[in-house]
Amino acid sequence: MNMIKVAVVGATGYTGVELLRLLARHPNVEVCAVTSRSEAGVGIADYFPSLRGAYDLQFQDPAAADLSRCDAVFFATPHGVAMRDAPALLAKGVRVVDLSADFRIRDIPTWEQWYGMPFTAPDALSEAVYGLSELNREAIRTARLVANPGCYPTCVSLPLLPLLRADALLPEMPIVADCKSGVSGAGRKAAVGTLFCEAGDNFKAYGVSGHRHLPEIRQTIASLQKNVADKLIFVPHLTPMIRGMHATTYVHLQDGVSPQNLLEEFYSGSPFVDIMPPGSMPETRSVRGANVCRIAVQKAPYDAGNVWILMSVQDNLVKGAAGQAVQNLNIMFSLPETAGLDAVPLLP
Amino acid sequence: MNMIKVAVVGATGYTGVELLRLLARHPNVEVCAVTSRSEAGVGIADYFPSLRGAYDLQFQDPAAADLSRCDAVFFATPHGVAMRDAPALLAKGVRVVDLSADFRIRDIPTWEQWYGMPFTAPDALSEAVYGLSELNREAIRTARLVANPGCYPTCVSLPLLPLLRADALLPEMPIVADCKSGVSGAGRKAAVGTLFCEAGDNFKAYGVSGHRHLPEIRQTIASLQKNVADKLIFVPHLTPMIRGMHATTYVHLQDGVSPQNLLEEFYSGSPFVDIMPPGSMPETRSVRGANVCRIAVQKAPYDAGNVWILMSVQDNLVKGAAGQAVQNLNIMFSLPETAGLDAVPLLP
Amino acid sequence: MNMIKVAVVGATGYTGVELLRLLARHPNVEVCAVTSRSEAGVGIADYFPSLRGAYDLQFQDPAAADLSRCDAVFFATPHGVAMRDAPALLAKGVRVVDLSADFRIRDIPTWEQWYGMPFTAPDALSEAVYGLSELNREAIRTARLVANPGCYPTCVSLPLLPLLRADALLPEMPIVADCKSGVSGAGRKAAVGTLFCEAGDNFKAYGVSGHRHLPEIRQTIASLQKNVADKLIFVPHLTPMIRGMHATTYVHLQDGVSPQNLLEEFYSGSPFVDIMPPGSMPETRSVRGANVCRIAVQKAPYDAGNVWILMSVQDNLVKGAAGQAVQNLNIMFSLPETAGLDAVPLLP
Amino acid sequence: MNMIKVAVVGATGYTGVELLRLLARHPNVEVCAVTSRSEAGVGIADYFPSLRGAYDLQFQDPAAADLSRCDAVFFATPHGVAMRDAPALLAKGVRVVDLSADFRIRDIPTWEQWYGMPFTAPDALSEAVYGLSELNREAIRTARLVANPGCYPTCVSLPLLPLLRADALLPEMPIVADCKSGVSGAGRKAAVGTLFCEAGDNFKAYGVSGHRHLPEIRQTIASLQKNVADKLIFVPHLTPMIRGMHATTYVHLQDGVSPQNLLEEFYSGSPFVDIMPPGSMPETRSVRGANVCRIAVQKAPYDAGNVWILMSVQDNLVKGAAGQAVQNLNIMFSLPETAGLDAVPLLP
Repeated sequence: MNMIKVAVVGATGYTGVELLRLLARHPNVEVCAVTSRSEAGVGIADYFPSLRGAYDLQFQDPAAADLSRCDAVFFATPHGVAMRDAPALLAKGVRVVDLSADFRIRDIPTWEQWYGMPFTAPDALSEAVYGLSELNREAIRTARLVANPGCYPTCVSLPLLPLLRADALLPEMPIVADCKSGVSGAGRKAAVGTLFCEAGDNFKAYGVSGHRHLPEIRQTIASLQKNVADKLIFVPHLTPMIRGMHATTYVHLQDGVSPQNLLEEFYSGSPFVDIMPPGSMPETRSVRGANVCRIAVQKAPYDAGNVWILMSVQDNLVKGAAGQAVQNLNIMFSLPETAGLDAVPLLP
Repeated sequence: MNMIKVAVVGATGYTGVELLRLLARHPNVEVCAVTSRSEAGVGIADYFPSLRGAYDLQFQDPAAADLSRCDAVFFATPHGVAMRDAPALLAKGVRVVDLSADFRIRDIPTWEQWYGMPFTAPDALSEAVYGLSELNREAIRTARLVANPGCYPTCVSLPLLPLLRADALLPEMPIVADCKSGVSGAGRKAAVGTLFCEAGDNFKAYGVSGHRHLPEIRQTIASLQKNVADKLIFVPHLTPMIRGMHATTYVHLQDGVSPQNLLEEFYSGSPFVDIMPPGSMPETRSVRGANVCRIAVQKAPYDAGNVWILMSVQDNLVKGAAGQAVQNLNIMFSLPETAGLDAVPLLP
Repeated sequence: MNMIKVAVVGATGYTGVELLRLLARHPNVEVCAVTSRSEAGVGIADYFPSLRGAYDLQFQDPAAADLSRCDAVFFATPHGVAMRDAPALLAKGVRVVDLSADFRIRDIPTWEQWYGMPFTAPDALSEAVYGLSELNREAIRTARLVANPGCYPTCVSLPLLPLLRADALLPEMPIVADCKSGVSGAGRKAAVGTLFCEAGDNFKAYGVSGHRHLPEIRQTIASLQKNVADKLIFVPHLTPMIRGMHATTYVHLQDGVSPQNLLEEFYSGSPFVDIMPPGSMPETRSVRGANVCRIAVQKAPYDAGNVWILMSVQDNLVKGAAGQAVQNLNIMFSLPETAGLDAVPLLP
Repeated sequence: MNMIKVAVVGATGYTGVELLRLLARHPNVEVCAVTSRSEAGVGIADYFPSLRGAYDLQFQDPAAADLSRCDAVFFATPHGVAMRDAPALLAKGVRVVDLSADFRIRDIPTWEQWYGMPFTAPDALSEAVYGLSELNREAIRTARLVANPGCYPTCVSLPLLPLLRADALLPEMPIVADCKSGVSGAGRKAAVGTLFCEAGDNFKAYGVSGHRHLPEIRQTIASLQKNVADKLIFVPHLTPMIRGMHATTYVHLQDGVSPQNLLEEFYSGSPFVDIMPPGSMPETRSVRGANVCRIAVQKAPYDAGNVWILMSVQDNLVKGAAGQAVQNLNIMFSLPETAGLDAVPLLP
């Protein structure tokens, strides 16, 4: 079988180096170009010594790189870049997986409000498929443009999907998603707030008045159980670990509904969602470095309703970003969904 | 003024060493005995090198120590010990601050159910005062026995007290308290689960099916706004930091109620509760080593009700344990409430 | 090709779970038994949730397991076990890789002095090969019993080997090996000293008066440049990270000797030793999870001699333990040396 | 007694906030001005929430602040600023403690070579006293300008001083100072290298080819035992903790010299140097937040000479910076040396 030729645009961040890590050992993929405006000409293994021996490529200037010879391009860029550059690639027959937020939101005014810039690629948006693999697997197969989900939306949505599809949530009650992320979620740019001495031995909430992943999660909820779409309360927190994300989601379910079975059935064919046995409490480290979301559910000790606590963990850089992007690539190119993604989590 | 003579029973744990740290520089207190069964005869500064130069005492065997010559005794022991030993001290006129859970729960069957042992000190319990300083300041002044609150109950209750007192919570809606604790909350005993390589770079929920601090918080809620006592949902999480606790509490308030003013008024005379300005998001490190609970509130971006997010942080070993115990001692002995507790938090 | 059948004895520790992680994706190996006295009957994926989906085995009681049907057995046990159990396996034709210290020291009295127990397997010792793969590759091919090196000895010896073989060290000057290890090197047993709150945000030396890896490193040095064997000064330190080891070794070289070329030549055929370019300073995270030792050398800014600073990093659980054990297995069974060991390091 | 009026110039960094923490509770000092170019007008307790309740000051623009009304000024600035601004203050009778490197090196060409800028304050330099308190206590009493030492020079020099003064080091052998610092030593500026995800769970050497603290330590050594000044080999490392520094220094001593007594005698009158009992291995956390350097010495298990391992720990922000600056202020103003510096270390 021919190797699929891919490029990574904007590979100096954490999502980028994680893509490179995963793609280096993908049996069906060849990385033929990696671009970076700031590091053009630098060897990627000089820039990231962890890649020594795995790559012999240099960062190319995006303006100079001819990406049209690739079969697929990953965008690991700040928002705005894929919106600008993806349409030309699509026109040349290159398929695109965008890890930025550009094509995640269907409603253009909503996107513009949250991202603070005009949206300029409505045609591309109209064909974009939201790349939550387990939700949209069929549409992804034939998609030319996949909008890879945000890390929080992946972690919060996966335990909710089966419940929403079953219309199991009480429409008059809130859905509280209290989420905790490792610091790599904030990216690799120089900033005081994510210094070791600021983020270490510390815990805090952020984005409480409104985080960009809120409309993204609401959009997914609304697509499945419309009458609870406005019931989401979402608060992200920064926790002093490098990788890992934990969502604790509190839901009020219809009387008699027990989510364990709903979840097990929904994900029976999904290799990367692990429904743990009753009584489990998933640890973020149990998925470190691997493309897995582990989920456990527990009934709350609560007499006033059928309240359940949904706990979901993922490596924010893998299932929450680069790993799901590769998963989507696999689906798009009819590869085994697990190709290049079978590494066992690193513990401890 | 005469120095108050105190003893610390069971001082080899984190609460114990923190008490010793605080008491070493307390202007009105003299530590005259420190007990430990396992370390009797060992110099406390040999056991805890951080105390070198601050103490010249040795751990005494509790059986051999005559604590009746003290004015007050702190119990920093596993549950069951204070219940057994405090009554005799009280009979001799020694006042007691119990940092364990023995006297926190008013209802004996509830205590026995959660702590799994018979409760044997009903007379002492009948005079015990729950030592949430800001709630029970007056009763603490004359108390002979103070039950120092748990760390989670302190952190969750403080932002709630003013709202409960104002009957501001909607009785039909849940109170979700999603809490995150540093690892020192688990104590200093050898255990695999709190090893550096198990708890580090990791995040998880625990005690989801029911944690001992749940009935304690419910008891406080019930004492103030009875119709919401059964609405508490409480999930603790372990976060990879040494000290620090963050509670994120989601409440549905009566229309028009805004908690900022209620909190500011309630705590206007409380030196150790800091109501931060609107828009703040407190960091646990902003209270590291200090006897402060910082609180900020934020209206949720939520159209379906008057939902507020209460964020409260404390150092679990200080305001959540040893610091509040000293604060209670100060109140009991008519000292300035801040005596020995004015250290500025250690940042970074 | 037939799969090689292996067993792991004592797999509940960090070395054990790391072996299981690596072996799960080894293309030529099948794990057919995993033993643990304390966890017999427990599913290994229940015990280590990171292994969910990767294994369907249960821990077996070592007494009940028939390991003679295996081609090879890894011992990931405390010292004393392999010495007792390996001879019977060898007699049945099973090859053994011992990750414990039992067969590392050639001189029995030295071993007994440092390990504090009688040595009982002199016949096995006589055929044991010290499994520093890059030093003893040829002997390992045919070995029936391989003594996998300690983590410090691997990290300290690798940069020294080429210099020692060239007789390049001044015999009258010390070799100072100042070493820093992540906490996983201390193992997974419950102990106060390696609790998160004891080992976190802390740095200390240990074993300064003499560490068991000292005679092991000296033995390797003596085998190559006899006149400097007694010149080693070795101090290990505990550093607050989970995985990773850094050795900083200070050597006085003969005038004119420059180690860069010696190292590059020595390791030109070694896939798992990476000699970095001049000016590099290796980071432990650049090898996290991978079977690589990265080495950089730098001339000291020092006028009084030809002093070089050798910096070497490895993941103590991989090249320092489980990874090198698999590397040795590959060599023993004539597999490609890199089989199952080609994962790219996890960064960040 | 009148309060001593002090100002802090450049207080937005870690050294600055640590000075503010210590000075807030100093019984004899009043902070009357705090300057910052970038944050002029901002409340210092808004900028550093840990200072809420402790200060009611705002950052002033340095150009606008009249510092001549102060008794003393601390410079917590990048190098070059004190050199430019201190002379005018000295001329107005203000005494200066400079925490930057400007006045640490006596030899101007050496300073210019290492700091890469012209040195412009030779008059001030001629009266500057190197503020290693325990070495120069008498000169500091009357100094108008104190050059507060670097963190590494403090930690490395303190265990060496008594040995150097006794001419105890062998002149033909190296002094190897292998040092490990917490990340706060790198300061609070936005930089990729000190992000949580870069510096966390990682260990590396840096500045191996020559660090600015090398000439500073050499200068101290040369002032005491001239014939070993060129024998220092100094390698700093970055370790994933917030505060703390550990120096492991390997020295060859004259036959028969045992450093324990030399150290105990030398420091018998020094409240902030703690010589630990034989067999101790100091932990950085045992001094967290406190102005203490703890030292332990151990003879190396080494037959080829009288080699000793000196282990010294300090909090790099306290005894290594702000604490020692306050200690020097105390000495300069004839206060008790321990005034405002008696806090017990924070453990855990």
